[in-house]
Amino acid sequence: MSRIITVSREFGSGGRELGKRLADALGYAYYDREIVSALAERTGMDENYLEHELERSTVSPYPIHFAQSFTEIPDASIGIRSLQTRLIRELAESGNCVFVGRAADSILEEMEPFKLFVCADEQSKLARCRARASASENFSDREMLRQMKRIDRNRAEYHDIISSYTWGDRTAYHLCVNTSGLVIKEMIPALAAYYREWLNAHAHC
Amino acid sequence: MSRIITVSREFGSGGRELGKRLADALGYAYYDREIVSALAERTGMDENYLEHELERSTVSPYPIHFAQSFTEIPDASIGIRSLQTRLIRELAESGNCVFVGRAADSILEEMEPFKLFVCADEQSKLARCRARASASENFSDREMLRQMKRIDRNRAEYHDIISSYTWGDRTAYHLCVNTSGLVIKEMIPALAAYYREWLNAHAHC
Repeated sequence: MSRIITVSREFGSGGRELGKRLADALGYAYYDREIVSALAERTGMDENYLEHELERSTVSPYPIHFAQSFTEIPDASIGIRSLQTRLIRELAESGNCVFVGRAADSILEEMEPFKLFVCADEQSKLARCRARASASENFSDREMLRQMKRIDRNRAEYHDIISSYTWGDRTAYHLCVNTSGLVIKEMIPALAAYYREWLNAHAHC
Repeated sequence: MSRIITVSREFGSGGRELGKRLADALGYAYYDREIVSALAERTGMDENYLEHELERSTVSPYPIHFAQSFTEIPDASIGIRSLQTRLIRELAESGNCVFVGRAADSILEEMEPFKLFVCADEQSKLARCRARASASENFSDREMLRQMKRIDRNRAEYHDIISSYTWGDRTAYHLCVNTSGLVIKEMIPALAAYYREWLNAHAHC
């Protein structure tokens, strides 16, 4: 059976970089935006449109008694998410890999993934976002923080709909890493070593 | 300045063992019950009595408007806790060390310790407690879980009175380790390596 690592993360915490570098160190495949590209290929839909739909919260603005059931909510993102779920399962079965986000920790629960959560303090997250943003994006710190919180809220909402535990709850992950002030690249050997020991312990179970 | 590691932990998660082994691996001093022994020596009080008082919650059973202020709450544990706080500061200044529990993460905040949180799932914690308990202790799982939760609640209450953040909140720690199913001894080299890199990054700040 494939060995799976899932990385859940706060926006701006460097979880994506951490996931990619960890995958490279272990020789695992890495899936994040690659999933959207594969979805675009299968459906013939535009990649940016798909990403936009997947970033939206699946929580309907209408109360559930109005919309009757989730399947009746007129929301294209639900269909896309269900395609994404199927694709995540397929990819997971095809070999050892790291998934970043997309609630893969819950979707792949029965495959017993190693679940990482990556967080950071607000200053570190702001600095990381500023370094990534193009010069044309002139958001104030307050606006950026509001955006970051909105994105995390959407991630949490989607996660918690399909999961038996709360997004970001420390007890639900095998390791929660706070990247504040850290150079992620430097942490990878220790994280890979920790993961290998974890794997070793769980192989004996 | 001394380098400090603080280990906060759920009861039964193996945080004490993890702290001791990490201290040994790094060549740091280790303080847990040692603090109570030192307190007993200084005050002439019985060690078991001191431990009992320190384990109790400092939260008064009376509402604050009745007791007027914390200094007026007739509770011996408050005086003992303040002695303990002074002692923790003294020990921290005397050299590199690991503290387990006792809200040392908050007491030593200004020394910028590396803050570890150790948790585990209920089954692992029960198994660890059963392995440690004497044959005469015939608690049911339900009773043991109730006891464990009570102890954690007391720890959280004491911590949160003197701290700017919530006990166990993942964002407040540098690393949260879930020991479920793990052999703690095997995880120490990776944890020590992670800590050394963290130290290295923070020395450059």
